[in-house]
Amino acid sequence: MLRSEDSGDSEALAHASILTDAGLGDPVLEELRRITRRPVRRHEQRGSGAVPPSGPLVYVGPHLPDELRTERLVWFHSTNAGVDALLSAAPWPERTLLTRTVGRMGDRIAQYVLAWILAECQEVPAHLEQQRHAEWRRLPSELAEGRTALVYGAGRIGARVGALLRACGIRAVGVARTPRNDERAFDESVTPDDALARLGEARWVVSALPLTSRTAGFFDAATFGAMRGATFINVGRGATVDLAGLGTALDDGSVRAAVLDVLPEEPPGPDHTVWKLPRTVITSHSAGITAPEDVSADFASCWRALLDGRTPELAVDPARGY
Amino acid sequence: MLRSEDSGDSEALAHASILTDAGLGDPVLEELRRITRRPVRRHEQRGSGAVPPSGPLVYVGPHLPDELRTERLVWFHSTNAGVDALLSAAPWPERTLLTRTVGRMGDRIAQYVLAWILAECQEVPAHLEQQRHAEWRRLPSELAEGRTALVYGAGRIGARVGALLRACGIRAVGVARTPRNDERAFDESVTPDDALARLGEARWVVSALPLTSRTAGFFDAATFGAMRGATFINVGRGATVDLAGLGTALDDGSVRAAVLDVLPEEPPGPDHTVWKLPRTVITSHSAGITAPEDVSADFASCWRALLDGRTPELAVDPARGY
Repeated sequence: MLRSEDSGDSEALAHASILTDAGLGDPVLEELRRITRRPVRRHEQRGSGAVPPSGPLVYVGPHLPDELRTERLVWFHSTNAGVDALLSAAPWPERTLLTRTVGRMGDRIAQYVLAWILAECQEVPAHLEQQRHAEWRRLPSELAEGRTALVYGAGRIGARVGALLRACGIRAVGVARTPRNDERAFDESVTPDDALARLGEARWVVSALPLTSRTAGFFDAATFGAMRGATFINVGRGATVDLAGLGTALDDGSVRAAVLDVLPEEPPGPDHTVWKLPRTVITSHSAGITAPEDVSADFASCWRALLDGRTPELAVDPARGY
Repeated sequence: MLRSEDSGDSEALAHASILTDAGLGDPVLEELRRITRRPVRRHEQRGSGAVPPSGPLVYVGPHLPDELRTERLVWFHSTNAGVDALLSAAPWPERTLLTRTVGRMGDRIAQYVLAWILAECQEVPAHLEQQRHAEWRRLPSELAEGRTALVYGAGRIGARVGALLRACGIRAVGVARTPRNDERAFDESVTPDDALARLGEARWVVSALPLTSRTAGFFDAATFGAMRGATFINVGRGATVDLAGLGTALDDGSVRAAVLDVLPEEPPGPDHTVWKLPRTVITSHSAGITAPEDVSADFASCWRALLDGRTPELAVDPARGY
């Protein structure tokens, strides 16, 4: 990993060519040029005949092309927040800095979670259905206020979810291996072991867990079976959930409903069994969508940190995985 | 209106028979008996052969039967918040106390408003539609945070709406004839005249206006025409809106979308033109639904006030209309 105190790497950064994914739009490239005061151009895919520049490289994009995954790569800035696929594909080059785009993802995901909680409380789907049939029938609503949500994952995203739910009067219990004492984010913080006994009181269980060796398949039949009619909302990673276990829990009612933004395999084919889960909505990995301005803003903050000789806050520890 | 210092009326209350609407459930009647320590029974409709008790009466229900609308009626506790229909039907008996059920209506309506705001920002209807077709396609979202909502009506309900929107980072501007300085409810308060110039900056326009002679038809073509792509949400009264004006504004885009919980005529027939308004959802007067526990809790607070010789906070001034 590039360290700011390492003069060799700083030197490399100063001379690096800056490339981006071919899919990045002109406004982002313009911003990157403005931030770095350097030429920035799109990377041509292998086989296109174009030759990548020689010497040190900085790359910005959603994926890292294999041919650039070498020690020549000084820094890869991911335009996504999740970097698990990148790290699990092959060992990360030891001296390459990896940073990611979080942007206003915490705010976006928190608003997504609250939107689906309130949509359920206010019977939004049933009202839309009535509208379709010109049907006037009063429907009951449920007050979210005073109910409890367990929020797994107490990092930047989980904390934003907790804080927003609390602002709406929902009691937020944060679940993390190292409980945080963030008074703004959670009413209470518990460990995953302690959380198991608390699942019964949850009206909502929200997962913002990253995918690591510890969290793969974390939400299994036993965890879902400990719920007592909670609605499960996954805004973390799809592979933290055992879909068969979720299906059983939806069938027996321990899980009331599910909102899945992420799935173990994305995209699922139209015949995938996940579309058949009862009382489940799948939202196509849209919760934490990154806007172009998020990419350039987060790149800029990393760039400034590197110029100042600091490790960027958005740097990923490849060993930890986030 | 019954005044607590009026010994004649207190005497009347002490001897009044307590009747309820035939539709009230057993749990509510049980609660009323517990609160008053008096017999409470359901009123039989005229023509049923049953004779209402003689002497002073207290009545609890959603509507007031004509035959009870006399000077014998000491107190009518409405199980609804809106009493406009009641007051416009005929002059209110001068010495009859009128109270209403607000319950947690402010909280419920505020959560309704936020639910529909976030449903729009998070494309909830489009995601539900994709689910229906097993379609995986990322959809953009909009951050509600930082946007502006104009909230017409700064009473108990409007203030709760403002406070909840603010808790989610939405800038809330309260609109009322007598601007309130409620720092918790609104970022700013303006008069209806001043609000006209502010409609252009609103992402949402929420109405929690009561129906009075001043507010009938208030949202007309001129008001809607001053909006610049706001979504209009009506949780007040249907007759405050000119539906033809709304239709024109939806057609020309000055109004982006509409969520109407209330209509000038309720229920609208299945062929009513209101069902054909573009980008509009009608929610069948469900936003401020009163739960049975709201009725008994608000009756209890009125009862305690009367026993203590105070005017109940939930008393309606028949001249003002709310």
